[in-house]
Amino acid sequence: MGSIVAENRKSLMLFSGRGFPELAKEIGEVLGVAPTPADAYDFANGEIFVRFKDSVRGSDAFVVQSVTHGVNTWVMETLIMIDALKRGSAKRITVVLPFYPYARQDKKHRGREPISARLVADLLKTAGANRILTVDLHTAQIQGFFDGPVDHLFAMDVLAEYMERKYAGRPMTVVAPDSGRVRVAERWTDRMGGCPLAFIHKTRDPMKPNQVVANRVVGEVEGRVCLIVDDMIDTGGTITRAADILKESGAAEIVVAATHALLSDPATERLKNSPISEVVVTNTLPITPEKQLDKLTVLSIAPLLARAIREVFDDGSVTTLFGGLS
Amino acid sequence: MGSIVAENRKSLMLFSGRGFPELAKEIGEVLGVAPTPADAYDFANGEIFVRFKDSVRGSDAFVVQSVTHGVNTWVMETLIMIDALKRGSAKRITVVLPFYPYARQDKKHRGREPISARLVADLLKTAGANRILTVDLHTAQIQGFFDGPVDHLFAMDVLAEYMERKYAGRPMTVVAPDSGRVRVAERWTDRMGGCPLAFIHKTRDPMKPNQVVANRVVGEVEGRVCLIVDDMIDTGGTITRAADILKESGAAEIVVAATHALLSDPATERLKNSPISEVVVTNTLPITPEKQLDKLTVLSIAPLLARAIREVFDDGSVTTLFGGLS
Amino acid sequence: MGSIVAENRKSLMLFSGRGFPELAKEIGEVLGVAPTPADAYDFANGEIFVRFKDSVRGSDAFVVQSVTHGVNTWVMETLIMIDALKRGSAKRITVVLPFYPYARQDKKHRGREPISARLVADLLKTAGANRILTVDLHTAQIQGFFDGPVDHLFAMDVLAEYMERKYAGRPMTVVAPDSGRVRVAERWTDRMGGCPLAFIHKTRDPMKPNQVVANRVVGEVEGRVCLIVDDMIDTGGTITRAADILKESGAAEIVVAATHALLSDPATERLKNSPISEVVVTNTLPITPEKQLDKLTVLSIAPLLARAIREVFDDGSVTTLFGGLS
Amino acid sequence: MGSIVAENRKSLMLFSGRGFPELAKEIGEVLGVAPTPADAYDFANGEIFVRFKDSVRGSDAFVVQSVTHGVNTWVMETLIMIDALKRGSAKRITVVLPFYPYARQDKKHRGREPISARLVADLLKTAGANRILTVDLHTAQIQGFFDGPVDHLFAMDVLAEYMERKYAGRPMTVVAPDSGRVRVAERWTDRMGGCPLAFIHKTRDPMKPNQVVANRVVGEVEGRVCLIVDDMIDTGGTITRAADILKESGAAEIVVAATHALLSDPATERLKNSPISEVVVTNTLPITPEKQLDKLTVLSIAPLLARAIREVFDDGSVTTLFGGLS
Amino acid sequence: MGSIVAENRKSLMLFSGRGFPELAKEIGEVLGVAPTPADAYDFANGEIFVRFKDSVRGSDAFVVQSVTHGVNTWVMETLIMIDALKRGSAKRITVVLPFYPYARQDKKHRGREPISARLVADLLKTAGANRILTVDLHTAQIQGFFDGPVDHLFAMDVLAEYMERKYAGRPMTVVAPDSGRVRVAERWTDRMGGCPLAFIHKTRDPMKPNQVVANRVVGEVEGRVCLIVDDMIDTGGTITRAADILKESGAAEIVVAATHALLSDPATERLKNSPISEVVVTNTLPITPEKQLDKLTVLSIAPLLARAIREVFDDGSVTTLFGGLS
Amino acid sequence: MGSIVAENRKSLMLFSGRGFPELAKEIGEVLGVAPTPADAYDFANGEIFVRFKDSVRGSDAFVVQSVTHGVNTWVMETLIMIDALKRGSAKRITVVLPFYPYARQDKKHRGREPISARLVADLLKTAGANRILTVDLHTAQIQGFFDGPVDHLFAMDVLAEYMERKYAGRPMTVVAPDSGRVRVAERWTDRMGGCPLAFIHKTRDPMKPNQVVANRVVGEVEGRVCLIVDDMIDTGGTITRAADILKESGAAEIVVAATHALLSDPATERLKNSPISEVVVTNTLPITPEKQLDKLTVLSIAPLLARAIREVFDDGSVTTLFGGLS
Repeated sequence: MGSIVAENRKSLMLFSGRGFPELAKEIGEVLGVAPTPADAYDFANGEIFVRFKDSVRGSDAFVVQSVTHGVNTWVMETLIMIDALKRGSAKRITVVLPFYPYARQDKKHRGREPISARLVADLLKTAGANRILTVDLHTAQIQGFFDGPVDHLFAMDVLAEYMERKYAGRPMTVVAPDSGRVRVAERWTDRMGGCPLAFIHKTRDPMKPNQVVANRVVGEVEGRVCLIVDDMIDTGGTITRAADILKESGAAEIVVAATHALLSDPATERLKNSPISEVVVTNTLPITPEKQLDKLTVLSIAPLLARAIREVFDDGSVTTLFGGLS
Repeated sequence: MGSIVAENRKSLMLFSGRGFPELAKEIGEVLGVAPTPADAYDFANGEIFVRFKDSVRGSDAFVVQSVTHGVNTWVMETLIMIDALKRGSAKRITVVLPFYPYARQDKKHRGREPISARLVADLLKTAGANRILTVDLHTAQIQGFFDGPVDHLFAMDVLAEYMERKYAGRPMTVVAPDSGRVRVAERWTDRMGGCPLAFIHKTRDPMKPNQVVANRVVGEVEGRVCLIVDDMIDTGGTITRAADILKESGAAEIVVAATHALLSDPATERLKNSPISEVVVTNTLPITPEKQLDKLTVLSIAPLLARAIREVFDDGSVTTLFGGLS
Repeated sequence: MGSIVAENRKSLMLFSGRGFPELAKEIGEVLGVAPTPADAYDFANGEIFVRFKDSVRGSDAFVVQSVTHGVNTWVMETLIMIDALKRGSAKRITVVLPFYPYARQDKKHRGREPISARLVADLLKTAGANRILTVDLHTAQIQGFFDGPVDHLFAMDVLAEYMERKYAGRPMTVVAPDSGRVRVAERWTDRMGGCPLAFIHKTRDPMKPNQVVANRVVGEVEGRVCLIVDDMIDTGGTITRAADILKESGAAEIVVAATHALLSDPATERLKNSPISEVVVTNTLPITPEKQLDKLTVLSIAPLLARAIREVFDDGSVTTLFGGLS
Repeated sequence: MGSIVAENRKSLMLFSGRGFPELAKEIGEVLGVAPTPADAYDFANGEIFVRFKDSVRGSDAFVVQSVTHGVNTWVMETLIMIDALKRGSAKRITVVLPFYPYARQDKKHRGREPISARLVADLLKTAGANRILTVDLHTAQIQGFFDGPVDHLFAMDVLAEYMERKYAGRPMTVVAPDSGRVRVAERWTDRMGGCPLAFIHKTRDPMKPNQVVANRVVGEVEGRVCLIVDDMIDTGGTITRAADILKESGAAEIVVAATHALLSDPATERLKNSPISEVVVTNTLPITPEKQLDKLTVLSIAPLLARAIREVFDDGSVTTLFGGLS
Repeated sequence: MGSIVAENRKSLMLFSGRGFPELAKEIGEVLGVAPTPADAYDFANGEIFVRFKDSVRGSDAFVVQSVTHGVNTWVMETLIMIDALKRGSAKRITVVLPFYPYARQDKKHRGREPISARLVADLLKTAGANRILTVDLHTAQIQGFFDGPVDHLFAMDVLAEYMERKYAGRPMTVVAPDSGRVRVAERWTDRMGGCPLAFIHKTRDPMKPNQVVANRVVGEVEGRVCLIVDDMIDTGGTITRAADILKESGAAEIVVAATHALLSDPATERLKNSPISEVVVTNTLPITPEKQLDKLTVLSIAPLLARAIREVFDDGSVTTLFGGLS
Repeated sequence: MGSIVAENRKSLMLFSGRGFPELAKEIGEVLGVAPTPADAYDFANGEIFVRFKDSVRGSDAFVVQSVTHGVNTWVMETLIMIDALKRGSAKRITVVLPFYPYARQDKKHRGREPISARLVADLLKTAGANRILTVDLHTAQIQGFFDGPVDHLFAMDVLAEYMERKYAGRPMTVVAPDSGRVRVAERWTDRMGGCPLAFIHKTRDPMKPNQVVANRVVGEVEGRVCLIVDDMIDTGGTITRAADILKESGAAEIVVAATHALLSDPATERLKNSPISEVVVTNTLPITPEKQLDKLTVLSIAPLLARAIREVFDDGSVTTLFGGLS
């Protein structure tokens, strides 16, 4: 009579933020589990309220949130959901952020700046997150901002498979749209069978900080299909400027592959008017009807996320999802 | 030659969020110090960027932020400002929140809810805040949510002084608009010279949770000036419903005093159409032109905040600002 | 041969402090598990020693402690028990505090005061507590003082069921003994079928802080059974003063329902000499023989606590115990 | 107008717990500063309330508490005082514990025991203590239990100076009352000019755990003044048993030097009836009249503590107070 | 479809540092589990890289590291292994340190010293260690340096059993080589059937700090087998000096039992040239061929560690391994 | 008599690790303050002991450590020094790491790897470091690994000024030795007046992970002075391979600029035998005589570090040292 002994079972539960519920639903369909119903709404002044309708005690909770436009609302909603799960006795809380917010502020560019990507990691931890699952971080070092396990997935395989099929047999050059993305582009050249690599070199006037004097292509692009690769398309400025220079430099065709389709204004307009013939992205973020574009191809990230969630729950190894890359 | 010795001076710096810069400016004018210039703007997807233009090293920093509509944006901006100050080596960071956000979610009303007011306190701490200075918390217990000093100021003196002058000689009853505000209303009766106290009693149907069956006045109101007191006016529903019942119960005149004027839609419309003759508030939150109303009187909270900031900087005692009340 | 795999079972163990071992025993009887035997005694100077006689490794440990008179001794014993469990490798430690100590110091009433209720929460966390299970907190916000799950149970159903049966058919008014308890009293009016609500309004002299000038009843009490409700009866001053005023105001009968029977001197004497006809409490705290009183009815809280502990262990939902209230 | 610059002064304030206010007063007299007045009292159930009457903002606060009989009360009072200082914006909080409580529980002697001395250190840290100042820890390793600076003072010089003067010219042996105190006794032999060292060896029956079979003296004691040294005298059992064996072994005279005079019952009786001729202690703890004894000599620790406090405030080096010892 | 439920199994995995892989292998053989294969190597500048070749998700991980010569390398490797396990989602991480590094720096001997043993405990915690399993700490208080469970094993039974068998029937005295080890030696006398106890008393010149004037034996050693017991043999100075004095004092034979064989130069030479006839140690640390010595007997600690690991994994009670001692 | 008021002065003290004391001394000479004398040595098994000879109470402490070969020793020494300063009551501790150790392990390249650069940041924090001052981090994101201010200095100005002077008038191309350094190389092109940019593109066989198939130059190098820029030269493999390809591709002259000269074997040999004509580095790490090379030019980093330390102490703005770059 010294103790009551019981079997210890584990239970995967899915929770969806309001940023992009369709993605959570799609992930749930792959997994065979529906997102837990919740009351979630905004007070008149914008304060968010969330309450889960089913017991979450002892659950292995996965909170899926697409931090789309109006980023701060979705960050706060995520934190509030985590707090509710923690106080509701969830056993382990994994935050699934297909797009990691504030990833571009990952260092102090100059003095007296925040490092907001680290701040976000700390906020998630403080609220009660035990783990993060994310896709194509702006820089891989952000993994180290979180004090706990981060499963970092790559969309390259999803995107590259499509590209290979579509542009098979054409001479291709992978192009980094700026100097900071050359490393990622190099990985693409390996994935695309060792094709050439080029990048856009921006020259700045040292007397006028932050003012770009000229852009020039470094690498071989003439007569080739130029595949610009990037982690995200925000307003599309960098990518369409790169496309213009590639065009001037004699590119045969220009296509783009990017994981995160923020498509903030005037991205759609810019892409439409650019010499780019096709833009391939994933649905880590919702693409609203007004952002739609004929030349835009959207591939689903849900199967990759569902597989990773299942492996995390089963204590399998997600490393196999990395395709040998970082 | 074992050490370099220097005088240790301290330096008060003021930083303004974008929620209500006019208030920070007004506080600065009282203090004789301008808010530190900053680059602050939103990226296309809503991510906030902040950079201070002057060195903040070693400063005693006061971050003034009015968390007005679009609460989550201003909460995140505050956190980002704190992070930038922490990483920029500010010595001590005091967050001045005239209105504390998410104060109404100060407990779990039912299971699986967050306690967002505690979450906000923890987020501020995590970002790097050392102290909080705030006005009229929804419940005073929120002071205990923050792990550090909280200076809790009261606007009652500012509001009551105006009321006393204006309604001197009239028979007055202080009215709590619901059962949870009776304690605060009792403090007002003491401040107003021991006048009677009434409150609105809501009856709920135990078979239909959360459904109010009836409101009735408990206390003496007939033929008297009824002063409804509350900490905030959000959509104005509670207060205007209270006014209607008071009217029905024979109140001679109905006036309202509240610290925080959220005035979310349809508050302005409701107040306008109500039997309330005057609404007195402070400017802890900005009151945009479309919220303006003839019967609305706005008193400035800036002198109180400026005095408290100065006392905090000087290590004086803010307790004197509390008027002997909690 | 890469790993040894075993079944993962969980084991509920009960641990009793010395504050009120009979309650832990009673809870254990409901659950079907005896409190784990321990050596616990005081050194000559009052230092407490605790050692558990059985292995606690991997257990789901529930520490039951009634923090009765001599509060500090029982708080420290609780902390020491938690430390011993943590260092003895208990898997999860839930502290069952039927009465949460220092709950009345839940805010700074004036400057330079502690917030001891938060301090207690932090001490429990530091010692190693993962969760708290408690009954009728003085203010519900105290839930937010603990950084982790708090299961907050309500004794109202236990008390109200008795009251309904005993006073069925009599005209009743629920009375809050002071302005801070009106909210709780309102919940009772709903529970008792929508009966009227009254409270005692204390007037203070603004020139003489903290000095009560007069008490008066606000609400309808004449010829009715007045049910004074409160969370605790300490020295009984507030409640017996309320009873006297109710008597003067024409109450037909006066009864009291309260969860926590501290009954510090001279509570028993006061209650005995008061116009109160019956006092109904629970045994969250021990009631020693010299506190006994003919008009005192004690209902057991053990079934409610046992049920909650079992649901926590089983990952069921305790929310059902809340009866739809906060 | 970018910042307000002011001189940064520091201010030493003294705060006294109720454990032994006379000691704090005596320290204050040496320093020239009176303990800050406070309201401190117990609620009927033993909960402690503390409020300081003067502003503590920005102060370098020293909390002096003698954790005497009823240890848990004084530990909690200390924690509550620290919390009030932290929330009242003291700049730095040093806890002065002339006697460190729970020092004897500094390790797990067997499984499932607490390490209460570490727990106390963590509780102090959690409440907000920045530093500890203490005298003659039971084991010096306790310094390492606190995450921050610990100034560890030694009373040996105070005690030894008296002993040297009084027993000059007599053949002396320093005696450790048990095997765990031989190291400390060895320091005394050095301090007393290299005199012999002895100790009491306890033999236990391996079949009957914790049962002492015999005590015998190891070392040379016949015809000598035997100086038993220990950190504390609690019930006096160990010391008087040692004295009896020393007497039997032919000691010429037996005297005792100890820092902490707990003198729990029946210490006074035991010492009185023992062959010990003089017991020399300090006033780290209060010695109530009923503990007085003709053969008891009490030396004041206040000058040592005052000097250390002043050096901490002035950023001088307390190391000089250590006399070259640990 | 609200959740996916699965059985929760636990899985013991063993990880070996490079300090002494043979010991981890030996432990694994007893347990029936091989250490998990890993890539571990040093970069040219000494930076360590570790990567585990199998998934560690959800595992109950035991990291075995012998912190032998070049201590800092093995401490860092341990921290890095823990970090890799934490980030790889191990469920629980137990660090098995047969020899706890920096144990001798367990207090400040003088001002401005580190307490490195506490630092090591904090570093392990920060990296992600949940528990520590160790053997014969230099002082038992080090258990309290770690914020979590420490399983403290004793090698005395292993060593004493050998001694009893070998020296049965001979008159024996247990000898502490200095005053700080008398307590441990006393435990040995109980274990060896209540034999006499002696120790080496060092006299220092108070005018010349840290300078030992003389060593003398306190206790009965003439004509007896003297068993010097210590926790470690580093350079062997203390022990061989003790042996010389024992020889001079008429010891019949001198043997040594110690848990940790650091055997730093010139330990082997010193032991060889000393009057000691046998030195018995365990293999908590590797003994390289050049340290070998005819009179050296090495007993394996692996069975004890394997049994403890298994009990920790099974949530059994390791207390039984303590033999009733602390 | 309520408090003792004193002036609050601040005092800069310098502390030198044993990694490269000459650098600390040089910094001290610029500042006009000698490193504080300390006892620092290794125990026989490699454990480090440090004790400062002067009081450090209240000091603004700067710990200068060059984490050179035998990295782990210097990391541990740094942590131990910080612990000693923390326990010795230093007011603020800034760690000056001219070369940040483990910077290359700033992300998980594959699963089950540590992020050692984050671990190091956490270890420093745990030991008690308040701030970090460092030069040319391998990736700037490492700033975000530390929870506190990081002053990140750049050696580019020191190196570029020398290069400009020496190679004025020659046609120059800045070359990134691999795809990950193109961003840094781009900054150099701006600093060198907008010259061309090239990089070495490595092609890997996707079937054989991590196996480089070919290196080729992307960009214009023929007939130009090729300036290879990198943050560090470890074994020199990457840089000398790059030089070989540049030579084959027609470079007129090949020079190298790098901040951190690790020069691990066989770097010196490789550089000597390479087509590189000059290698310019700084003395962030010691360059021992056997690493010396005719073509090696060493510029001192001490003036930059001294200026930064002084600005930190004076609360000036180090941002001016950044030259407008990140």
